Amino acid sequence: MKSIGTPMNPLDLAANRDSGYPEPFRSRCLPREKRALGDAAGLTTIGINHTTLFPGASSSMRHWHTCEEELVFVLAGELVLVTDAGEATIQAGQCAGFPAGHSDGHQFINRGSVPAVYLEISNRDEQDVAHYPDVDLRLDSPEAPGRYAHKDGRPY
Amino acid sequence: MKSIGTPMNPLDLAANRDSGYPEPFRSRCLPREKRALGDAAGLTTIGINHTTLFPGASSSMRHWHTCEEELVFVLAGELVLVTDAGEATIQAGQCAGFPAGHSDGHQFINRGSVPAVYLEISNRDEQDVAHYPDVDLRLDSPEAPGRYAHKDGRPY
Repeated sequence: MKSIGTPMNPLDLAANRDSGYPEPFRSRCLPREKRALGDAAGLTTIGINHTTLFPGASSSMRHWHTCEEELVFVLAGELVLVTDAGEATIQAGQCAGFPAGHSDGHQFINRGSVPAVYLEISNRDEQDVAHYPDVDLRLDSPEAPGRYAHKDGRPY
Repeated sequence: MKSIGTPMNPLDLAANRDSGYPEPFRSRCLPREKRALGDAAGLTTIGINHTTLFPGASSSMRHWHTCEEELVFVLAGELVLVTDAGEATIQAGQCAGFPAGHSDGHQFINRGSVPAVYLEISNRDEQDVAHYPDVDLRLDSPEAPGRYAHKDGRPY
């Protein structure tokens, strides 16, 4: 945590270049860089990541959260947003929000030729469960708390 | 609220061009435009404003919150951040965070010649009180809930 109010350049922060997903989902989200702005600023109730998604990569598997709402604000480049409604392009300067508890999964895919950079903003809720309509994946299953599991609860 | 996941251009949203402060503080924060991205996306636990602060205006009076943490991400232009540590310049692409409960007031001032645009991100907490170290102002005084008051509790 930096001093309160010290201006930060996100690119000065250490990047997480991995994905917590088990394979084969992990590879679909790389290469990607995440920098935890909220953590670096000492915030505790909100997660704010500065994410760079390189051409070909997906932000996540298509998912929705039971208790965590999200907003993505695109800073540079262009992404394809996939939801139940189909595909939509989202460009630098635009945003999209996802209230908690709506079973319409979303993901962003970089189908362009340049990196896309965006902020992902979410509340933190210990009761949250993420559901993945397209793949055999579940986060924070009661049978495997804090871990990715198959839909039937078996851990990966 | 738009459909879930519909990409939004912030500038398509209606702007609040006023300030809720009583005078003489209100005028110091104008001209300014705020667009409530979080509300438009149906979010309830996080407030996310897209704010345009014109030359000469201040984001707020210098303040700190008891229960609401904040992060400001500058999208365009340049601002002067004022805290107990003095003044610091914050530019497009940079951010600054303010954990709740630290009695170091902050404000941003546009001393440049072009509009500054930024996102302001905060959790929502009904118990929150804002304190203003430099001026005779208090938000959500127990004597005047939800209203601006003098430090002794008298409403403006």
